[in-house]
Amino acid sequence: MHQTFDAALEINLLHANQAGADHNRAHFDKWGITCLNLMSSPGAGKTVLLEKTLAALNQDLNMAVIEGDMTTELDAERLRQYGVPVIAINTGRSCHLDAHMVSGGIHQLIDEYNPSELELVLVENVGNLVCPAEFEVGEHAKVALLSVTEGEDKPLKYPIMFQQADCLLITKMDLAPYLDIDLKRIEANVRQMNPNVTMIPVSAKTGEGLETWFGWIRKQVQYFQMLKVN
Amino acid sequence: MHQTFDAALEINLLHANQAGADHNRAHFDKWGITCLNLMSSPGAGKTVLLEKTLAALNQDLNMAVIEGDMTTELDAERLRQYGVPVIAINTGRSCHLDAHMVSGGIHQLIDEYNPSELELVLVENVGNLVCPAEFEVGEHAKVALLSVTEGEDKPLKYPIMFQQADCLLITKMDLAPYLDIDLKRIEANVRQMNPNVTMIPVSAKTGEGLETWFGWIRKQVQYFQMLKVN
Repeated sequence: MHQTFDAALEINLLHANQAGADHNRAHFDKWGITCLNLMSSPGAGKTVLLEKTLAALNQDLNMAVIEGDMTTELDAERLRQYGVPVIAINTGRSCHLDAHMVSGGIHQLIDEYNPSELELVLVENVGNLVCPAEFEVGEHAKVALLSVTEGEDKPLKYPIMFQQADCLLITKMDLAPYLDIDLKRIEANVRQMNPNVTMIPVSAKTGEGLETWFGWIRKQVQYFQMLKVN
Repeated sequence: MHQTFDAALEINLLHANQAGADHNRAHFDKWGITCLNLMSSPGAGKTVLLEKTLAALNQDLNMAVIEGDMTTELDAERLRQYGVPVIAINTGRSCHLDAHMVSGGIHQLIDEYNPSELELVLVENVGNLVCPAEFEVGEHAKVALLSVTEGEDKPLKYPIMFQQADCLLITKMDLAPYLDIDLKRIEANVRQMNPNVTMIPVSAKTGEGLETWFGWIRKQVQYFQMLKVN
C-alpha cells in the first residue's frame, strides 16, 4: 500500500477498491467464469507460465487473459499467439492493477465475446510483490509466484503477498542446482506466513510441476462453476 | 505511483515528498555525505551487493546504511556484521521508502554518530521496480539492479526505474550461462530508456565487475565531497 500520509484516505482507497472488486466478482459469478489473479516480482515467470497454461488448456477450457503492464503490450502480444482473447491494460504510473482498471478490461472483453461462453479469466498483474496483494480485482483466487532465484527470505520480507495467496508456485526450479538455496527453508518460511497455501514447485523449461498446476486450475474452475449464480 | 483516483492528490504527494528529499539532501551536502539509493525487484541481490561493498570499502570510507524493509530486520542484521551503522526502517504496508521515512533514519543516525565523520550513506530501498523510482529520499544518485534472471524486457516494461537510474548493475552474471538470455538485448533495451546510464555487469558470487562498482562509488564520493557546502 502506498504511503499517503493519511490513514483515513488509505482506508477509503482500499474500501472503494473492494466495492469495485465485489462488483467484478458478481459479474464473473453470474457468467460462471472463474477468475485467477497472478502476481509476483518482475521476471518471476508469470508470462511464460501463462504461455504454457494457454497451450495446454486451450482445448478444454474457454479462456481469456487480462494483461496488466505499466507500459507496452509486449506480454499481451506473446499471449495472443495462443488464440485466446487477451485484453491489455496499461497501468501507466500505477504499480498494480485495481478493480476499476479490470472492470474496464471486462467491458472490453464482453463487447467482443459472449461472456457466458467463457469459463476462465486469467489476470496477469504488474510485477510487484507488494501492492497487488492488497488490491483485489474480483478474482476468486490469488496465485503468487516466487522464483528460486529470489532467495529464501522473501516470504518473511513481503508478508502480505504470501499471506493472501491461495496457490504459490515456486518457479524456475531448473535453476535450483546452480543456486546456494535451501528449498526446505523457502517452504518453512512460506508456511510460517500461510500454513494452508497450495505450494507447487514448477519449471516452465523442464515442465516440472506443470500438470499439477493445470490440475489445480481445473479444480478451481469446477468448484466456482458449481457455485454459479443463476 | 499508486493509483489514488485523484491526479491532483498524486501530484501533491510527490510534491511534498520532493520537498522532504531536498531537505534531506541539503543535510547530506552540509555534512559532506554522499547518499546513494539502491533499488531493484525483490531478490535481485541488493543486500548481498551491500555486503560485498561494506566488506571492501570499510577501510577507506566511513559508511552507514539506511535499510528499508516492509517488515523484519533480516537485512539490517546481515549488514551489521560488517561493523557499520545500520538504521532499519520498516515501511509497514508501504511499497517504497519516502523522504519522510529516510529523514527519520537520518535523525536516528546523527543521534549516535557524528555526521561530519560520515562520507557515504547507502540506502537500500524496498524491493520494487515501480514506486521507489518516483520517490526521492535525498540521494545524490540512483543505483538500479536488474538480475539476468529477470529477462530482457524489463527496461521496456518498467521504464521509470531505468530512465531514472544513474548506474545500472546487471546482477547474477554467474547464472547467465544457464539462461536463454541475450545480454546485448538487455543492454539495447536499457539504452533505449537511458542512453547515458553507467552499466556494470556484476556477480557477487564470482566477484565479476565488483571492482568497477567500487570505483564508481569512490568517484561519486569524490565528486559530491568536492561540492560540499561549507
